[in-house]
Amino acid sequence: MKILIIGAAGMVGRKLAERLALEGRLDGRAITGLVLADLVQPLPPAGLSGKVETVPCDLSASGEAEKLMAARPDVVFHLAAVVSGEAEADFDKGYRINLDGTRALLEAIRKARRAYKPKVVFTSSIAVFGAPFPQAIHDEFHLTPLTSYGTQKAIGELLLSDYNRRGFLDGVGIRLPTICVRPGKPNRAASGFFSAIIREPLAGQEAVLPVDETVRHTHATPRAAVGFLMHAAGLSRDQLGSRINLTMPGVSCTVGEQIAALKRIAGEKVAARIRREPDETIMRIVGGWPQRVDARRASALGFRAETSFDDIVRIHIEDELRGKIAA
Amino acid sequence: MKILIIGAAGMVGRKLAERLALEGRLDGRAITGLVLADLVQPLPPAGLSGKVETVPCDLSASGEAEKLMAARPDVVFHLAAVVSGEAEADFDKGYRINLDGTRALLEAIRKARRAYKPKVVFTSSIAVFGAPFPQAIHDEFHLTPLTSYGTQKAIGELLLSDYNRRGFLDGVGIRLPTICVRPGKPNRAASGFFSAIIREPLAGQEAVLPVDETVRHTHATPRAAVGFLMHAAGLSRDQLGSRINLTMPGVSCTVGEQIAALKRIAGEKVAARIRREPDETIMRIVGGWPQRVDARRASALGFRAETSFDDIVRIHIEDELRGKIAA
Repeated sequence: MKILIIGAAGMVGRKLAERLALEGRLDGRAITGLVLADLVQPLPPAGLSGKVETVPCDLSASGEAEKLMAARPDVVFHLAAVVSGEAEADFDKGYRINLDGTRALLEAIRKARRAYKPKVVFTSSIAVFGAPFPQAIHDEFHLTPLTSYGTQKAIGELLLSDYNRRGFLDGVGIRLPTICVRPGKPNRAASGFFSAIIREPLAGQEAVLPVDETVRHTHATPRAAVGFLMHAAGLSRDQLGSRINLTMPGVSCTVGEQIAALKRIAGEKVAARIRREPDETIMRIVGGWPQRVDARRASALGFRAETSFDDIVRIHIEDELRGKIAA
Repeated sequence: MKILIIGAAGMVGRKLAERLALEGRLDGRAITGLVLADLVQPLPPAGLSGKVETVPCDLSASGEAEKLMAARPDVVFHLAAVVSGEAEADFDKGYRINLDGTRALLEAIRKARRAYKPKVVFTSSIAVFGAPFPQAIHDEFHLTPLTSYGTQKAIGELLLSDYNRRGFLDGVGIRLPTICVRPGKPNRAASGFFSAIIREPLAGQEAVLPVDETVRHTHATPRAAVGFLMHAAGLSRDQLGSRINLTMPGVSCTVGEQIAALKRIAGEKVAARIRREPDETIMRIVGGWPQRVDARRASALGFRAETSFDDIVRIHIEDELRGKIAA
């Protein structure tokens, strides 16, 4: 089985590549080749020696998508995207990468066919939803994104669905919740604090909490996100039916509950590293975000997230800190 | 006020142009210029002498949208589209006209700005919805189109909404139900019989009914469609809020109820011109279509359709037959 990951230099893309290299199999089949593509040349993961190729590639540039498809991968993970904040700041770039890039990929697949029909796993986002929301966002709630990023992801879902219906590919779109705890440096994304208030204290650093503890949001770990992607790749057309874009499950909890979980696992001293510093702008942005999803279809199809924020904290400690908490 | 109609050679586009020419005003303001654009050069309507310009134009061709926007119309009605059957038969053409054409228009508006912000009325369709449906399709039901045409219209709605949110234009998208009674010759659209079983008998011709009389569907007259478009042009940003794409109201009735209305208005002899000739293919296609819409938001915003199929028959007789029924 040959696999292509587009957006392989991103956080989730890297973790997916590492996991595939480690397991050597996907959906019960041996991986015989793994191509990692991104705007910057991705680093190859350990394992799968000699079978990994890394490619710098701008999907939206003429002819680039065709080149990627020339190897006829059996599974394509499409994770490449300009993120929310950047797509809002740079209108042209957001549409070029997130819409034109995705469309170029789908077109390259359509035109490459001749008994060729790859599985395409598209990462969408709960940013396709926009307030006002019902109590929990159910599987038949409409898409009314309130960002250009969310708009581009929603269009990607529609295109994927039409190409799937036409039989050009076997598609599945997964709407990721906020990934938490995100490893690495703090960033300036409005959602950054959800991870920072766990990650920084565990690493001995102070973190700033810009919103009230009553703020509720839905989270899944990077490990769960990789699990979603791999599970999605194994779903058949029959299992999915015509509605191939699915909201992924996650843990819905308040910031207060996040902090309580941190205390239970790492102690009062660690949790005391969170400094309250209310920020009106961030509060306003976060106020328009989904609080709860009712991911019934995805759960019925076997997608599994963590079931408590305690698990989310523990997984971060295991996966990123090798079990060690800064005293 | 300067008005541009794109798709002005189509049935609804022609009727809109005629109505605007007749009234000479839109939303309380005098019309000082009317540009009619379509792939084939549209015919100018009577009235508004000297103020009507007709332009042959392929919106998806490079530079064409910019040319149309050069006159800085205050209101743009975008009705141009490759219809459902053709978009399904010719994948490339459907995406070129319905997606690339719409995007080119929006981009031309975005790039033309500098204190320029037209009202853009986009005609969408209930083809953005795909079965299975709830009892009636409500305003928060998700878009899962089952045709390329429906996909392209759904993408058009998302783009319009993002350009509206960004402040590049004042947008409103209206999802038209099936237009009935459609004047003109019978066509091969799967939905054609809904109009044909009324139009042909009234004109003294035989019509074929390919489905069961229990089939239910939602209809609005061409006159109502023109009314929707003109009403939409008068709605403000405040009235619309962030959800600018609206399902239009219509008359939901069964084929049996359509025929009963025809009998009441034109008599048994006219209704006897309908020949039952079941067609499995058409039955299957129609089976996946929306039966009822619950157009609560549009109704609250003042959009009005007919309230009975009797009215629909009467309006056809008035508008297309000058009051005369073939004995």
